Amino acid sequence: MNNELLIKGKAAKKAARVLATLDTATKDKALITIAETIMEQEPIILEANDKDIDAGRANGLSEALLDRLLLTAPRLESIANDVKSIVNLPDPVGEEFESRRLPNSLQISKRRIPIGVVGVIYESRPNVTIDISALCLKSGNAAILRGGRESAYSNRAFAQAVRLGCEAAGLPPESMQLIESTDRSLVKEMLRANEFIDIIIPRGGAALHQFAIDNASVPVITGGIGICHVYVDVAADLTKVIPIAVNSKVQRPSVCNAMDTLLVHQAIAPQILPRIADAWAEHNVEIRCEPRALTILEDHPAAKPAGPDDFDTEFMALVAAVKVVDDLDEAIDHIYAHGSGHTEAIISEDYTAAMRFANEINSAAVIVNASTRFNDGGQFGLGAEVAISTQPLHARGPMGLKELTTYKWVVWGNGQIRP
Amino acid sequence: MNNELLIKGKAAKKAARVLATLDTATKDKALITIAETIMEQEPIILEANDKDIDAGRANGLSEALLDRLLLTAPRLESIANDVKSIVNLPDPVGEEFESRRLPNSLQISKRRIPIGVVGVIYESRPNVTIDISALCLKSGNAAILRGGRESAYSNRAFAQAVRLGCEAAGLPPESMQLIESTDRSLVKEMLRANEFIDIIIPRGGAALHQFAIDNASVPVITGGIGICHVYVDVAADLTKVIPIAVNSKVQRPSVCNAMDTLLVHQAIAPQILPRIADAWAEHNVEIRCEPRALTILEDHPAAKPAGPDDFDTEFMALVAAVKVVDDLDEAIDHIYAHGSGHTEAIISEDYTAAMRFANEINSAAVIVNASTRFNDGGQFGLGAEVAISTQPLHARGPMGLKELTTYKWVVWGNGQIRP
Repeated sequence: MNNELLIKGKAAKKAARVLATLDTATKDKALITIAETIMEQEPIILEANDKDIDAGRANGLSEALLDRLLLTAPRLESIANDVKSIVNLPDPVGEEFESRRLPNSLQISKRRIPIGVVGVIYESRPNVTIDISALCLKSGNAAILRGGRESAYSNRAFAQAVRLGCEAAGLPPESMQLIESTDRSLVKEMLRANEFIDIIIPRGGAALHQFAIDNASVPVITGGIGICHVYVDVAADLTKVIPIAVNSKVQRPSVCNAMDTLLVHQAIAPQILPRIADAWAEHNVEIRCEPRALTILEDHPAAKPAGPDDFDTEFMALVAAVKVVDDLDEAIDHIYAHGSGHTEAIISEDYTAAMRFANEINSAAVIVNASTRFNDGGQFGLGAEVAISTQPLHARGPMGLKELTTYKWVVWGNGQIRP
Repeated sequence: MNNELLIKGKAAKKAARVLATLDTATKDKALITIAETIMEQEPIILEANDKDIDAGRANGLSEALLDRLLLTAPRLESIANDVKSIVNLPDPVGEEFESRRLPNSLQISKRRIPIGVVGVIYESRPNVTIDISALCLKSGNAAILRGGRESAYSNRAFAQAVRLGCEAAGLPPESMQLIESTDRSLVKEMLRANEFIDIIIPRGGAALHQFAIDNASVPVITGGIGICHVYVDVAADLTKVIPIAVNSKVQRPSVCNAMDTLLVHQAIAPQILPRIADAWAEHNVEIRCEPRALTILEDHPAAKPAGPDDFDTEFMALVAAVKVVDDLDEAIDHIYAHGSGHTEAIISEDYTAAMRFANEINSAAVIVNASTRFNDGGQFGLGAEVAISTQPLHARGPMGLKELTTYKWVVWGNGQIRP
């Protein structure tokens, strides 16, 4: 095993034992100190970020990617404030549930505890270094962070602020550790470091998630890939259709809970599709249509035929795939065949259609008569999130503090033995 | 991909969609029909089991393994009764929790749903075919079962009974499917069949679990390997020590929650260890001692020096490793260094010692003043279990019906969009 990973892995396991039983006040003190340190170290962090930006420009990164990479004084302040806001979230550790007293008087409970050591593999955005550290710290987990090469300087500066904050609050400085080696093979080793890492959270594109699934022996939380659907039912309230179709697509097209595919019931498609297309046109949405939809929109300047992959694509852009379906059954079948299990919405005033959609779709979030953009930790009132899980194990949808915990059974006895 | 796996995988995914929304009464009817079919098919099942026993004998299986394999009329009746008892357990599907109303009036809940398709890879005992099928069915999951070669005939006869029961109740006959191919490479393909299988539960020895961890891309629930500890504190109530030490070790030594290692505080070891050894001697427990324990027990006929691996071994037999420790800290450190995260118990009347043990040990079950043998679905009042998980994700300890579910967010709106 790579030596850096070995050393940091051992240190993380050790730190995790300390973090697991730490009181909330001490964890909160560390969070506040980290936020303050970020502000104090502003010149150092921005200077480090300059180096990343220069290198990125030299390597021909797009302006969009450079902007994701860029830190500014206001962005730093916002990052520091996000850390402070985690102080206000309840500490999930120690909650007991499903408590009961057995017939033999054993008192048993599930008690929430941290997962242990969280491994995070992420791309570009340096703020992930801080976000994940803060969430792991509050939930009592140690973390091993492996950021993207393009944000290496910024990540190091952030990791240093986290380390100082931990030290000042009396936490092990190895609570949150950044992998500094840029050796590509280290990612694969992290994915198989079961001895030191309890869970891997990949934060990045589909290729990173697939790489993690293919190579990990450590449990992986996959997600973040949203091929999200909005189905406009025959009984849709037309006053709700345009706002939801527009908001789901354009409010922030580059994120995972933005709509990718619009499914429209054939009986109202001729009436509603042109109006949706016009509303989208104001936001420059490109429309990729299967044949029936194209027939309806054939004169629309934004409409063009869908390509073979358009219904299996997370666009992350102002592009929508549109399909006319015969009925609710075809809509549900389409979602099962093409969805990624992230977020699906129906627009309908028909009770049975709404219930069937909510019951039969098994995606992480099923939404009736609202925008897909609500599948988000902040929107759901969970506070910040480390990821949006689309896989069925452990957690689904936004993963906040509680989803960074597991549980153990605690059993209080007075000498009981099993007959 | 192996053709049988491909065909059964596709059929399982399809069946899972039907099972997920099935009402409890229909699932219960299928369970009762399966139980009845097992009894009706008794001659066929016992005949199939005879073939397995004959083959096992010809292949030189030990008497212990042959006994695990053996079905008899009373055993069949007990298996059928276990299926019927699952009818009485509450259906976990549909439960809503963490429900809230957001400031924008969106009404949101986590709703419990089946995981989907459960893949089970198991060894020898044919009753697993029925147990897992029944638990999966009640929790609305489809299952793909791959049993051991040595129980192939029995498994097929059981799978046929399950299929008939499902059909008679109107369920898809492909709800529970047994893989019939004995091709070894198929196990590896199952572990990587992410397209069709949502979770893999290995049921067998440490080698099978490790093989699953090393090769799976489908999430795996590992567990069942218990290197379980009992720590006798200086403040132990001596009247509790003998019963708990004996019960933990001898009540059923071949199972995962039996004690493997006894840790004894140095201040009471000279007094209590000989008495424990005498009590164990009545049950023919072999005692493997580290040097300090051996000094105390040097004249005891059952005591011998511990070998290099004895503190890292799940004995599954009437063998115990014994170590004298300086204090609670050393006991906890030893458990972190050598435990498998399954079940650990402390015997102590000292409040702070008991609390520290319960707080600092992070195994699936932490027990104060009671036998390790209580870490069990039936004992904890969960009903039957598919496995005892020792890994930190999704579920820990006994996995009953609830632990065979996941959740989705259900969001009821009236036109909300994100500002």
